Amino acid sequence: MMFLEVPDLLGPPEIARLRELAGAARFVDGRTTNAHSPVKKNLQLDHGDPAYRESAAIMHAALMRPEQVRAFVFPKFIAPPLLTRHGPGMNYGAHSDAPFLDVGGTRPLRSDLSCTIFLNDPATYEGGQLSVQLGARHVEFKLQPGGAVVYPSTTIHQVVPVTSGERLVGITFMESQIVDQNHRELLYELNEVLALEGFTISWENRTRLSHVSSSLHRMWGDGA
Amino acid sequence: MMFLEVPDLLGPPEIARLRELAGAARFVDGRTTNAHSPVKKNLQLDHGDPAYRESAAIMHAALMRPEQVRAFVFPKFIAPPLLTRHGPGMNYGAHSDAPFLDVGGTRPLRSDLSCTIFLNDPATYEGGQLSVQLGARHVEFKLQPGGAVVYPSTTIHQVVPVTSGERLVGITFMESQIVDQNHRELLYELNEVLALEGFTISWENRTRLSHVSSSLHRMWGDGA
Amino acid sequence: MMFLEVPDLLGPPEIARLRELAGAARFVDGRTTNAHSPVKKNLQLDHGDPAYRESAAIMHAALMRPEQVRAFVFPKFIAPPLLTRHGPGMNYGAHSDAPFLDVGGTRPLRSDLSCTIFLNDPATYEGGQLSVQLGARHVEFKLQPGGAVVYPSTTIHQVVPVTSGERLVGITFMESQIVDQNHRELLYELNEVLALEGFTISWENRTRLSHVSSSLHRMWGDGA
Amino acid sequence: MMFLEVPDLLGPPEIARLRELAGAARFVDGRTTNAHSPVKKNLQLDHGDPAYRESAAIMHAALMRPEQVRAFVFPKFIAPPLLTRHGPGMNYGAHSDAPFLDVGGTRPLRSDLSCTIFLNDPATYEGGQLSVQLGARHVEFKLQPGGAVVYPSTTIHQVVPVTSGERLVGITFMESQIVDQNHRELLYELNEVLALEGFTISWENRTRLSHVSSSLHRMWGDGA
Amino acid sequence: MMFLEVPDLLGPPEIARLRELAGAARFVDGRTTNAHSPVKKNLQLDHGDPAYRESAAIMHAALMRPEQVRAFVFPKFIAPPLLTRHGPGMNYGAHSDAPFLDVGGTRPLRSDLSCTIFLNDPATYEGGQLSVQLGARHVEFKLQPGGAVVYPSTTIHQVVPVTSGERLVGITFMESQIVDQNHRELLYELNEVLALEGFTISWENRTRLSHVSSSLHRMWGDGA
Amino acid sequence: MMFLEVPDLLGPPEIARLRELAGAARFVDGRTTNAHSPVKKNLQLDHGDPAYRESAAIMHAALMRPEQVRAFVFPKFIAPPLLTRHGPGMNYGAHSDAPFLDVGGTRPLRSDLSCTIFLNDPATYEGGQLSVQLGARHVEFKLQPGGAVVYPSTTIHQVVPVTSGERLVGITFMESQIVDQNHRELLYELNEVLALEGFTISWENRTRLSHVSSSLHRMWGDGA
Repeated sequence: MMFLEVPDLLGPPEIARLRELAGAARFVDGRTTNAHSPVKKNLQLDHGDPAYRESAAIMHAALMRPEQVRAFVFPKFIAPPLLTRHGPGMNYGAHSDAPFLDVGGTRPLRSDLSCTIFLNDPATYEGGQLSVQLGARHVEFKLQPGGAVVYPSTTIHQVVPVTSGERLVGITFMESQIVDQNHRELLYELNEVLALEGFTISWENRTRLSHVSSSLHRMWGDGA
Repeated sequence: MMFLEVPDLLGPPEIARLRELAGAARFVDGRTTNAHSPVKKNLQLDHGDPAYRESAAIMHAALMRPEQVRAFVFPKFIAPPLLTRHGPGMNYGAHSDAPFLDVGGTRPLRSDLSCTIFLNDPATYEGGQLSVQLGARHVEFKLQPGGAVVYPSTTIHQVVPVTSGERLVGITFMESQIVDQNHRELLYELNEVLALEGFTISWENRTRLSHVSSSLHRMWGDGA
Repeated sequence: MMFLEVPDLLGPPEIARLRELAGAARFVDGRTTNAHSPVKKNLQLDHGDPAYRESAAIMHAALMRPEQVRAFVFPKFIAPPLLTRHGPGMNYGAHSDAPFLDVGGTRPLRSDLSCTIFLNDPATYEGGQLSVQLGARHVEFKLQPGGAVVYPSTTIHQVVPVTSGERLVGITFMESQIVDQNHRELLYELNEVLALEGFTISWENRTRLSHVSSSLHRMWGDGA
Repeated sequence: MMFLEVPDLLGPPEIARLRELAGAARFVDGRTTNAHSPVKKNLQLDHGDPAYRESAAIMHAALMRPEQVRAFVFPKFIAPPLLTRHGPGMNYGAHSDAPFLDVGGTRPLRSDLSCTIFLNDPATYEGGQLSVQLGARHVEFKLQPGGAVVYPSTTIHQVVPVTSGERLVGITFMESQIVDQNHRELLYELNEVLALEGFTISWENRTRLSHVSSSLHRMWGDGA
Repeated sequence: MMFLEVPDLLGPPEIARLRELAGAARFVDGRTTNAHSPVKKNLQLDHGDPAYRESAAIMHAALMRPEQVRAFVFPKFIAPPLLTRHGPGMNYGAHSDAPFLDVGGTRPLRSDLSCTIFLNDPATYEGGQLSVQLGARHVEFKLQPGGAVVYPSTTIHQVVPVTSGERLVGITFMESQIVDQNHRELLYELNEVLALEGFTISWENRTRLSHVSSSLHRMWGDGA
Repeated sequence: MMFLEVPDLLGPPEIARLRELAGAARFVDGRTTNAHSPVKKNLQLDHGDPAYRESAAIMHAALMRPEQVRAFVFPKFIAPPLLTRHGPGMNYGAHSDAPFLDVGGTRPLRSDLSCTIFLNDPATYEGGQLSVQLGARHVEFKLQPGGAVVYPSTTIHQVVPVTSGERLVGITFMESQIVDQNHRELLYELNEVLALEGFTISWENRTRLSHVSSSLHRMWGDGA
C-alpha cells in the first residue's frame, strides 16, 4: 500500500481554528526555505508568527491520534506541520523532497513520508491537486477539509497550478523507524492481517505470525 | 517510475495475426494453471495448441525490440507470452503473482515484472481494465491494440469484470537482473539522465555518472 | 525452527536395500575427501563402487518426496547422499562444513543445509549421536532407521565417538534458494501459517499474506 | 554460539538481598504489562514498589560486570531487570518477545537478547524451566541461584509450568549494537579467537584479524 | 574517490597558534590511550593540559568550514582533534583504527574516516609520512603546514619512522552518516556531478538526479 | 588489499610466444569494441585472427595457476585475455569498465576485477603506465614482462600516453563469486590468516575461524 488517506484527521473545530489562524497570520514566499528552487511558487506561514506554534501543535496532535497512521508510518519523528497557501497562478512543480531536513531538533529529520492536510473546501478552488508521478501516470489527491494523505517522500510529485480560489493546506514530513518503503509496506500488510485475523487463527499460528512480524521489525528498523 | 507503457509494441500485421490465431485456437479454463484460485475467471490458450508457439514467438520478439523495455526491465528472462480472453462475466480478482514460475526452462523464472499486451479495440468491450491497487487508489490500464504495460509483479492487481464484448490480451512475466523494484527504478532514472545529457555535460562528469551507474548495476544485479 | 526431523523418510524396503548395498560395498577412509582433517575418523562408500549410484539415487529420491522438506529447505540442489560408517573408536570431531563443494555438477554446490539419514537401529550401537553445538549446550540426534534430520551447515557439530556396534548413515548437503538461515526460517513459518490457516481467514487477508510471502521469497532468494 | 550461560553472575550476598526484597515486596499479575496475552500466568514486582529500584540496580550492575557478557551481547542498552515469580500452576506459554519495549527512556528499547537470572535453588521447585524451541526440540535452562542465561529474543520460548515450590527469577531485555543474531555470533567467535590467540600469531596477522573484526563491527553495528 | 586532501584547511594564524600551544604544553606517551599496542611510539597532548581544549577547538572549527569536507565525509560527529608529535626514532607501525572510540560524548563514536592535519614544514623533518597500504603498494602523504588528508579508518596504515626533526600533526576521527565506504564514495561522485552540472542539464533531469541522490542518501544513511 | 601484483605470471617461453603471435597478427582500432568512446586510442588483436585463440588460451591458463589469484579473486569466470598495443601518441583516457560484458558465453560476464598482463620490457617504451585514480592521487603500474596486476573494475583508471616505443599487454576481466570489493578483501585477509596461522593456533580456534570464513563466504557469495 503506497498511500494512506485519512478522511477525518481533523474535526470541524480544528479546521475552523486553523483557517482562523491562517487568515490572520503573516505568510512569506515559499522560496524562503528553498532559495534556489525554480519550481516552488507558494506562500508559507512565517515561522516567527505566533500562529505557527499553535497551528503546528493542532496538526501534530491530530497526526498522533489515529492507529492507522501509526500502523502505516511506524513514526519516529513528525516535523511540526506548516500552513501553506497557493493562490491563483501558484503551483509547486515536479520535485522530490530533500532527504534530511533541519526541523529544529538535535539532529536532522529524515523525510521518509510526506503528508498534506487539506483545509479548504475543494469546490472553492480550481487546480491545486497533489499529483504523484508514477511513470506517465499520475495519482491525484484533493481531499475534503480535514482529510490527510500520507505518501512516500521519495516519489516525484507536484502541486497542480491553482487557477482560481485558494488552496490552504498543512504539510509535514515524517521519519519512520523503517527507511525502506517496500519493507514498511510489507510489515504494514502483515500487521494488518494480525490485527484482523489474530483471534480467528490458532494461538500457535498467531504466535508464529507475531514472531515473523517482530523479527522483520527488528531487522528493518533503524533502532528507535 | 513504477509503470512503463509502450503504445506501439506491436504493429498492425502482428496484431492481425495474433487475433487470427486467437480466433482459431483452443482456449481452456484459466484455473488449469492456478487450480485453487477462487478469483481467476478467464480463458487462456491451450499450451498444446499449435497457435501457442507462434503467438508466443511474435509477442516475445516484440518485447525484445524497444530500447525502453530493456532500459526499464533489465531483462534476464522473459516467459513466452500467453493469449488470454475474458468474455462477459469474466474477471481476475485481486491477487499478486506467484514469485517463481515453471516456464519450461532448466530453472524457474522469478516474476519481477508482469506485462499485459492489449489486442482488441477498447471501444469493443466494456470493463477489462488492468487495475493496480495502491492503497485505496487504483491505477487503471486499457490500451489501444498493440499497446503494452509493464508493472511490478509484487503489486496487488486485478482485471475488472468484462460486462460486454471480449478482452483479448497477451500476458507474460519477466525476470530482471535487478530484483528490488526501488533499485531498478533508481538505476533506470540515472541511466535516462546519462542517455539524455551524456553529451551535454563534460567528459569527466559523464565518466563519473557512468561509474556510479556501473557500480550500482553490479551491486544490485544478481549476476547475469 | 532450526532443525527438521523427518521420522519416516525411508520405508522398510529402502532401508533394507541400503543396508544390503552397504554390506557388500567397498568403503574407504573418510579422509579421502578431507585430506588434512585431524578430526575426521570414519569410513565412506567409495565413489567408484557400483553401490554408490544406486544408494545415492534411493536417498535422493526420498528427500525429494516430503512436502515438509521442500517447505523447510527451499531446495535448489541436493548433492547425491553418501553412505558412511562409524565403527568402534570412530568419530567426527567438532567442525563446520565447507561452504562450497564439488559434487560433480557444472558449478560447486553451496552447502546451506546438511542432512543425516539414519539406517541402523540405535539400540545396536553405542554413541554415534549427531551433536550440534549451541554455546555450551548440545542438541543430539540419533534417530530410528529411515529417519532424517536436516540442520544448518553453518553450525559447529560433531559425531560422538561410537563405542560399540556400527553407525550407518547417509549424509548429504543441500543448496537452498535462500542462503540466510534466519530469512529461511521466517519464510518457512509464514508459509506454514498460510498453509494451515489460508482458508480460515478472509480471501483478502489470504491475498495479503501471499503477497508478503511472495515478496520476501523474491527478496531473499538468489535467483533459481 | 546461540546461548550464553553465566553460572555466577550474582554472588551470595546479592542473591540473599534479592530474595529478601522479593519476600517483602508487592507483586502483581504479569498481565499488567501484557494485557491481552492468554499465555502469561505469573506474578511480577510492582514497578511502584520501593524494592523495584534496588533490585533492578543490583541485577543491572551485575550484568555490566562480566567481560563475557559484553563480548557476547555488544550491549547498547540493558533494561532494568524485573523480579518475577511463578508459583504452582503458573507458567508462560510459548511466545516470542515484543520487538520494541518502553522501558522509561527517551526512546523504546529493541529487544535483541533476553536474559533470565535464576534466584531460587532448583531443588526447591518442580518445573519452571526456561525452554527454548528449536523445531521439535527444546533446549532447557534451570540454573543454580545467581546463574544467568542470555538467549535471542527472536526465539519462540516458554516457561514450563511450575508444579510445586516457587520459581523466582529476574528477567530483562538487551539492545545490542548488532541486530542480526548471525552477525553477532560470527563477530563474537572472531573476537574470541583474537582474545585467545592474539599473541600466538604474528603481529601482522593480528593486525589483519583486528582489521577484519573492526570492519565487520562497523558494517553490522547500528551506530553505537 | 578514496582520499580527500585539503591543502589550506588552516590559515597561517591558526598554524602559528597551534605550534605555540604545542610548544608550551605537556605531552605524554601515546600508549596512554592504547596501552597494549607494540607498534605505537609517539607523544600526544595530555588531555588534562589547558592547551587541549583550545587546540581541539581550532582544528574542529576548521574541519567544519570547507564544503568539500562536508561533501566527502557526510559528517555526523567529528572527535576533538589531538596534537601528536613524532621525534627522531618514533613511528606508528601498521595498524587499523579501532571501530568505536570513547570521545567523551553520550555514546561512542564510530571511526569511519581518519584525518591528519599537518602543522610543521615537511622540509624540517625526515620521514613521518602517513602511509596507507593498498596491497604491496602504499600511498603516502606529507603535506604543507595547514594541509589535511582524510582517509578511511578501515585501511591498514602507518606513520613512517621520523629520522630527524619533528613531525607535529593533529589527528582526529569522523563518524559519517554513511558507514559503507563504497556507498559514501558513490554518493559523493553523484553529488559532485549535480553541483557541477545541475544548471547545464534540464530541470527535469536535474530533478531525476536529485531524486536518485536523495533516495541513495536515505537508503545508505544510518539515521542522523 | 586493493591490488594484487603477480610478478611472474608468465614464464619466458610464454612471453616469447605471445610477442611472436602479436608480431604477426592483425590489430584493429580499439574503438571496434567501444564505438563511442572519445578516450580510447589503442590497437587490439582482431578477434577473427587465428592468433586470438592461442594467445587467449596461454594467458587464461596462466591466470588459473597461482593460488594467490584464486585467493584474491574468488573467480567464477575469467574472460579470454586480449592482446592490445599502444604505440606513440596512444593512450586510454580516464574511464571505468562496463559492468557487464558479452564475452561469448551463454550470459554476460560481470566485470568485478580487471587485469593487465605486461609483455614488453618497460625500459623499451616511455609512458604507458596503468594509472588508477584515488582522489587526487594515482597508483601506477608498469611491470616487468610476464607480470600481472589485478585491480577493481570499479575504479576510474587510465593508460598514460605512450611517447616512444610500444606497450604490449594482455587485458581481461574477471567475475568474482563476491561482488562487493570490501567483502572480498575482508574474506581474503581472513583466509590469509587461516592459511598462515592455521596450525599455530589450537584446533578449536582453527575451527572457529574456518566457521567464520565459511559463513561469510556463503553470505557474500552470489551462488556459483
